[in-house]
Amino acid sequence: MSDEVVLALTAGEPAGIGPELCLQLATGQRGVGVVVIASQSLLEERARLLGLDVTLHPWQPGLVPRKGAGELSVLHVAGCASLQAGKLDTANSRYVLETLTVAARGCLAGDFDGMVTAPVHKGVINEAGIEFSGHTEFLQELCGVERVVMMLATEELRVALVTTHLPLKDVPAAITQERLTQVVTILNADLKKFFGIERPRILVAGLNPHAGENGHLGREEIDVIEPTLEKLRADGMQLTGPLPADTLFTPHWLDDADAALAMYHDQGLPVLKFQGFGRAVNITLGLPIVRTSVDHGTALDLAGTGKANAGSLHTAIRVGEQMARSLKSANSKTAKHRKAPNKEKSE
Amino acid sequence: MSDEVVLALTAGEPAGIGPELCLQLATGQRGVGVVVIASQSLLEERARLLGLDVTLHPWQPGLVPRKGAGELSVLHVAGCASLQAGKLDTANSRYVLETLTVAARGCLAGDFDGMVTAPVHKGVINEAGIEFSGHTEFLQELCGVERVVMMLATEELRVALVTTHLPLKDVPAAITQERLTQVVTILNADLKKFFGIERPRILVAGLNPHAGENGHLGREEIDVIEPTLEKLRADGMQLTGPLPADTLFTPHWLDDADAALAMYHDQGLPVLKFQGFGRAVNITLGLPIVRTSVDHGTALDLAGTGKANAGSLHTAIRVGEQMARSLKSANSKTAKHRKAPNKEKSE
Repeated sequence: MSDEVVLALTAGEPAGIGPELCLQLATGQRGVGVVVIASQSLLEERARLLGLDVTLHPWQPGLVPRKGAGELSVLHVAGCASLQAGKLDTANSRYVLETLTVAARGCLAGDFDGMVTAPVHKGVINEAGIEFSGHTEFLQELCGVERVVMMLATEELRVALVTTHLPLKDVPAAITQERLTQVVTILNADLKKFFGIERPRILVAGLNPHAGENGHLGREEIDVIEPTLEKLRADGMQLTGPLPADTLFTPHWLDDADAALAMYHDQGLPVLKFQGFGRAVNITLGLPIVRTSVDHGTALDLAGTGKANAGSLHTAIRVGEQMARSLKSANSKTAKHRKAPNKEKSE
Repeated sequence: MSDEVVLALTAGEPAGIGPELCLQLATGQRGVGVVVIASQSLLEERARLLGLDVTLHPWQPGLVPRKGAGELSVLHVAGCASLQAGKLDTANSRYVLETLTVAARGCLAGDFDGMVTAPVHKGVINEAGIEFSGHTEFLQELCGVERVVMMLATEELRVALVTTHLPLKDVPAAITQERLTQVVTILNADLKKFFGIERPRILVAGLNPHAGENGHLGREEIDVIEPTLEKLRADGMQLTGPLPADTLFTPHWLDDADAALAMYHDQGLPVLKFQGFGRAVNITLGLPIVRTSVDHGTALDLAGTGKANAGSLHTAIRVGEQMARSLKSANSKTAKHRKAPNKEKSE
């Protein structure tokens, strides 16, 4: 495997801002190889609409992606009907999912070092009669893993979630020893593997206000969270908590931590989005591949106007590249490590 | 009533940092009249311990509080046993509650324009066999009001809560049309009365992630929150929402709002504490009196060391003063308004 990092970038919902964010990338040079996975004619049409002078270069495994200003490597996916920017069409839902499949399979096959996703539109995919609850779950199934972990990150802060898109009333019952063990184990392993952190320091929030205040405000900390963390600490993990969520996100704790783990969506993400709105990246941990995403939606009202902000996409690409490099470095160390004993044996 | 604002400041748990924070105030001049409600001998002892040169002046209604450097007006409350800084003693619990009663009654009688509270220690009060769940509930009962609203504020952000110290599993059922109506009505009225905002613009969070995503992630937004907000809007209130909590706390929404209303503790306070740690003030709305508080605890480990940071207390006093002035101004307008028609009639 070469040292060159190649990322697949899925353009997402064709009626949204995804295609033009991909094209905007090509207005300057890239430091990393990016292959856009999309309908080539869609990209051509959108470029014309916006008056962007971008030459699209068909890509295939083995080719080095173009990085120059005004050029973009594309892996064409068929099946995208002609459309108007901003107008959803259920006819394109299969095409959208196909771009994800192509990118993920390419990662699994080693053609790509990771994938970055522009936003899809859940509603229109479901309207097309296809069950789909999000990128994360789709990739989880495609990669055949039991549990994945959603983590949002900015340059300064990483927040992972134990539960994600559940009604609030279903959250307490979902905080089980089994789930918490899986999530913490994945978070700890992937902070090492993808971020090169040798012994990750993880802050864990309680479920209840004031982390239950010794059982006065709920017992899940005592019955579930504390015993689970105790076991995982015995395995050598550096876990602090359960901490009150409104104490956890203060410099006293954050300054000495690599990530925060919130029990549920609105306990962790409001702080993260407040701290780094427009600069946050959504990362899926627990997959055998690198996957990052923008932190915004399809913004149908902006599609075709050229006003969409590519800030989050730039961050998603930069973080995806860092994760891919960290993974390559870890793999090459493992390879050397594996080689060494064999060599000794053969001598 | 004079234009001079006089605030009662309760020194809180005597073994904690409250008494020394009160004494630290006296190291400089104050722009506002403050009367410390505490045991005078406790303050004398703590001043000696810390080597602070502060002259305590007994205060009684009608006297103008001292504001000069090195002097502090005190309304003595008896019943505080001799103690060591940092060591809790159940013998002092009645005394602590008496300071709150004296301050609140003084506000109701018009001797004070508001009260500011240093931290108490819930645990030791309960250990003393007295049911006590916090300043807020104590003052609510003392003032005989059905509902109060907890709001935390910094210079830049105000976050009020629909529910406060409830186990997370009990939150969804507590979000009723009745409670939400009461809370929004109080928040709207008190932003006018205490903050001089003519038509408050309030952002309301949903209960579920993504504010329920059209019912896919919970139905409380559709069944409870939206119909309630609709009714209140018909009464002229400016309410935006229900918004996803991780969208609400971003500049797009916050820039044009006077306050955010979170459905529960850990949905709103982590952002507020992250944004303004050590500079936040806790405000009780819905009371007939002004009440602000520091946003920290008794910090027993720091008591007697002189290392406690008075930043939050300074903020609590400043905000308390602003609220008291706004209330005075509103009352004097109402008085003039009332006078005018009478005058017309008599002519």
